[in-house]
Amino acid sequence: MATIKDVAKEAGVSVATVSRVINKSPKTSESSIASVTNAMSKLGYRPNAAARALVSQSTNTVGVLVGDVSDPFFGTMVKAVDNVAHEHGKHILISNGYHRPEEERNAIELLINNRCNALVIHAKGLSDEELIGYAKEVKGMVIINRHIPDLAERCISLDNRKGAYLATEYLINHGHTKIACIASSQNIEDASQRVEGYLAALKDNNITLSKSHIEYAEPNSDGGEIAMTNLLNKSLEITGVVAYNDYMASGALSVLDENSIKVPEQVSMMGFDDGLIARYVYPRLTTVRYPIEMMADKAARLALALAREDHVENETIVFSPTVVRRNSVVRVSER
Amino acid sequence: MATIKDVAKEAGVSVATVSRVINKSPKTSESSIASVTNAMSKLGYRPNAAARALVSQSTNTVGVLVGDVSDPFFGTMVKAVDNVAHEHGKHILISNGYHRPEEERNAIELLINNRCNALVIHAKGLSDEELIGYAKEVKGMVIINRHIPDLAERCISLDNRKGAYLATEYLINHGHTKIACIASSQNIEDASQRVEGYLAALKDNNITLSKSHIEYAEPNSDGGEIAMTNLLNKSLEITGVVAYNDYMASGALSVLDENSIKVPEQVSMMGFDDGLIARYVYPRLTTVRYPIEMMADKAARLALALAREDHVENETIVFSPTVVRRNSVVRVSER
Repeated sequence: MATIKDVAKEAGVSVATVSRVINKSPKTSESSIASVTNAMSKLGYRPNAAARALVSQSTNTVGVLVGDVSDPFFGTMVKAVDNVAHEHGKHILISNGYHRPEEERNAIELLINNRCNALVIHAKGLSDEELIGYAKEVKGMVIINRHIPDLAERCISLDNRKGAYLATEYLINHGHTKIACIASSQNIEDASQRVEGYLAALKDNNITLSKSHIEYAEPNSDGGEIAMTNLLNKSLEITGVVAYNDYMASGALSVLDENSIKVPEQVSMMGFDDGLIARYVYPRLTTVRYPIEMMADKAARLALALAREDHVENETIVFSPTVVRRNSVVRVSER
Repeated sequence: MATIKDVAKEAGVSVATVSRVINKSPKTSESSIASVTNAMSKLGYRPNAAARALVSQSTNTVGVLVGDVSDPFFGTMVKAVDNVAHEHGKHILISNGYHRPEEERNAIELLINNRCNALVIHAKGLSDEELIGYAKEVKGMVIINRHIPDLAERCISLDNRKGAYLATEYLINHGHTKIACIASSQNIEDASQRVEGYLAALKDNNITLSKSHIEYAEPNSDGGEIAMTNLLNKSLEITGVVAYNDYMASGALSVLDENSIKVPEQVSMMGFDDGLIARYVYPRLTTVRYPIEMMADKAARLALALAREDHVENETIVFSPTVVRRNSVVRVSER
């Protein structure tokens, strides 16, 4: 492979001139640019990205940390960041953290060591303190789906409590009062905030239900099956269910189907996320839309602006979820 | 931030010694390693990944090109590569090519310029010739989901024809003879190979059907709806459908449901991929499993072995799909 010295020789200029052309230094003559570009092309020379990064102390890469890229929720998030990066002539480096502190720490270290000066971080395992430490080190780091008060202007979060409140209220507005909650057993703030939203909506509507109406399980389809089975086993008189996410809702739908309980005629079901599967399950899921695409777009733009040290407006960046009406909820009187 | 000079001063050694420790040079004494490691830790010094890459001419990163990471099929592929990379103490750099030549070319150039010496490439837009050119340049480059004869030992592909043959044969074995094909209008080999498989299975079973039994559309849920609508409009007497993928099958299921045509009682449906949604649609989809996880695992291991110039066995790397039986196909006599 040709080296920078070969290019200099071919172009009849110094190595320093070649370097200036590669790094688009303003102090480069038109004729140097032309001769160096021709020589690079002729010799098939690839400007070494690593060498260029060393010079400028920043790569052309936006770092992204997600929970697990094989989950379409994170796939959608990564794609939105990629679109913004692409628009700015940059590319993305992604890493999975699996919500585990050690994995998240390794991933962030890797991204920083690779000189990503813009980072979009979805971290649920690390403490606020540790994330604040990284944020101090990397001025273009933005946190998504988490609110850290000391870092508020660099956090893009969702009002999870409001989402669950809306889901529960939607059932109440359709005449439901016997509403179960299928919650996530994961120890992350999303889980507790959504249960809080469910409880707040009940309270504001003077509905009192026993704690046995809440079932905790893994936030996936299997977890939804287990939680719904447990709710049925407890012989509770339930007409509606708010699920932690669409996967849990889909698992609950399977159990109801296997037990010949009709949805929505006998039990109405609310999901959360409006992810890929919400449109595919039967009946199509009425759910709460998590605007992850819009949030990731915002996070990527903010990270790039902060990395450039642009002036950034201090606007509110807590997004609100909305209800998406499909076929899994019906009015109690219509049953 | 501390520099390499600060570390050298703190450790009481030369900058060259610090450099040797960072680059794990064999010519380093135990005591130097200890004092430099302590000094780096004390000063919070980050070995500059870009600088190290420059020295060793290879980064610790495996490059992955996919069509679109927000599609769970590619999410699963990326995760499998990430798992292998992780096992080898490496990380991944991903890029989307969207099956467009220009995007794929830019993405591969980026990965090569970033000195990824192991590459797993899912490219459908670029020509065989161009991919062969890149493969000559990067000895650790492996192609996934495509067979290029001149590069056979570095291609991990699926027998698409066999998959569609199996799907069609599965319907025939269940007494079906009026079988429609919902095909992809994308100009990629997967599309034509799957139609070939459908036609071959019909021919081998002496079933003759008009060309109007094949409908082409975009390989997504909307495309499946359009194709199924067109098939119904043509008043064909259809008892079974083989779809290009699960998304098209799901769109077709929606149209059948809207037209009060029962699946599988009146029309049996075969998907392809066994992706995320196959388990969520109603009825659960009988489909052909695309072993993308296993294939991506194999591709990543092969890419790393080739990058290390390890001896690699010249075994067959065309994977075979298999039928996954769920609830969308029934014997004609049972209808």
